Amino acid sequence: MRLVTFEYGGRTRIGALRGEDEVVPFDAGLPTSMVDLVAAGDAALDRAAAQLGSGAGVPLTEVRLLPPIRPRNNIMCIGKNYLEHAAEFAGSGFDASQQQAVPDHPVVFTKALSSVVASGDPVHVSADSTGTSDYEGELAVVIGQGGRGIAAEDAYAHVFGYTIVNDMTVRRLQRQHVQFFLGKSAATYCPMGPALVTRDEIVDVTKLWVRTTVNGEQRQAAPVADLIFDIPTLIATISVSVLLEPGDVIATGTPAGVGIGFTPPRYLRAGDVVEVSVDGLGTLTNPLV
Amino acid sequence: MRLVTFEYGGRTRIGALRGEDEVVPFDAGLPTSMVDLVAAGDAALDRAAAQLGSGAGVPLTEVRLLPPIRPRNNIMCIGKNYLEHAAEFAGSGFDASQQQAVPDHPVVFTKALSSVVASGDPVHVSADSTGTSDYEGELAVVIGQGGRGIAAEDAYAHVFGYTIVNDMTVRRLQRQHVQFFLGKSAATYCPMGPALVTRDEIVDVTKLWVRTTVNGEQRQAAPVADLIFDIPTLIATISVSVLLEPGDVIATGTPAGVGIGFTPPRYLRAGDVVEVSVDGLGTLTNPLV
Repeated sequence: MRLVTFEYGGRTRIGALRGEDEVVPFDAGLPTSMVDLVAAGDAALDRAAAQLGSGAGVPLTEVRLLPPIRPRNNIMCIGKNYLEHAAEFAGSGFDASQQQAVPDHPVVFTKALSSVVASGDPVHVSADSTGTSDYEGELAVVIGQGGRGIAAEDAYAHVFGYTIVNDMTVRRLQRQHVQFFLGKSAATYCPMGPALVTRDEIVDVTKLWVRTTVNGEQRQAAPVADLIFDIPTLIATISVSVLLEPGDVIATGTPAGVGIGFTPPRYLRAGDVVEVSVDGLGTLTNPLV
Repeated sequence: MRLVTFEYGGRTRIGALRGEDEVVPFDAGLPTSMVDLVAAGDAALDRAAAQLGSGAGVPLTEVRLLPPIRPRNNIMCIGKNYLEHAAEFAGSGFDASQQQAVPDHPVVFTKALSSVVASGDPVHVSADSTGTSDYEGELAVVIGQGGRGIAAEDAYAHVFGYTIVNDMTVRRLQRQHVQFFLGKSAATYCPMGPALVTRDEIVDVTKLWVRTTVNGEQRQAAPVADLIFDIPTLIATISVSVLLEPGDVIATGTPAGVGIGFTPPRYLRAGDVVEVSVDGLGTLTNPLV
């Protein structure tokens, strides 16, 4: 299923997409928030699938999409997880925390939950007085069953599904504060969505391609197979210490082609439109204002 | 008021301490969670004060304290914000992200919400296979009215109150992953409490002393006045990018005297008891198991 959270009839609802232009709101007997649906496990998901099959649909044009999920923990992100991006980031001089271009261990930081917006929502780059805003298109994993000490070989059993994150970054703040949080957490700088696609819809996640365009011009394109630390390694590494909870979001890292990879850097400006697409997950589209 | 969250009669309640050994649960007409109480503003706080004055008390021994608040955003923390601690941390070799011992700008990272526990709860240091667990006693600020772009001169008007955080850290993970999140976010590694003390109770927060003991031996003692970046600077700096929300928690940094400041390092072990005290805020006590 392609699960969505949306406003309809003055209320926040969850439901699933049917075809290209219809959404089926879930009804009685199911949790009313996505994080609770994820936490409710397989039986709830089966009831959701039944409702998708038989429920009345609403035209997509009549709802307003919201971020597909609000996790209990902050948005976790992986830095420098594609080889060519690690090289371009090192070359840009913007990684003040850098020991080596390609890390020995996954680099994990977070974005504030208050930075999350939906597909279609504006990103307020004009509030960035440094003028160094940049995109990072990423595949994000959504955790199903939580836990600590999850072994890499069991990791996919803990994946509920996938979505898309644009890990928008204020490069000057990222460098200036050394730890990435402030540069990564500006209000509206975490577009997520459009949908949360359940794991059963994706045959082989490593075969998916992540593509980012700015005003229609392709900037990033790489297969998930190119991740330096793959999804099972990320889940295992994070859960060595962190108690992962149902609905937690892990953005897996961005491929080469970000704005600071160009000479001179190509920063984002109000009026630009950034689109991040992942095969099977749809397109995350955000106008910059 | 010294606000607390607790379990009583099989339910999670909020209330306030009265004297040394009584808690008054809040009743009808008030939010049922602390973050909602904070968000409800001054009128709700006045009703709470009235209930504290007239309400029936319960012996503290009959309730189980929970963390005073579960914020909407992850726990924000400041690294290297006391001069002598910045020096001891640099000298320890554990700061893989270091540019200079004393930072030019506040270093801001987060701890996972799933790491938060209450005063009295056990901290599972035996789950740290690296054997490099360490304490960091800190004063924490709790945001009242949220916002973005808060000026330093207005910052205290955005402070709801204060609590204590022990920013427990797995030093090897902190170094190995460069970004601090994984080393800071192990399950149970964010003791918080015992209470959330409203701002009106504190005449001058800079005069408070932060003290940490391990098994009764004093390890840390410094006044909040020694912060390199003071509370108004921290709120202003964070809110340049982050939309702060009511109830957000900012741990302001730890003084000198952490375990890795000793030669050889004095790491924590199961059986130890760590206590962090701040004048007027009480004592945060956690046994290590």
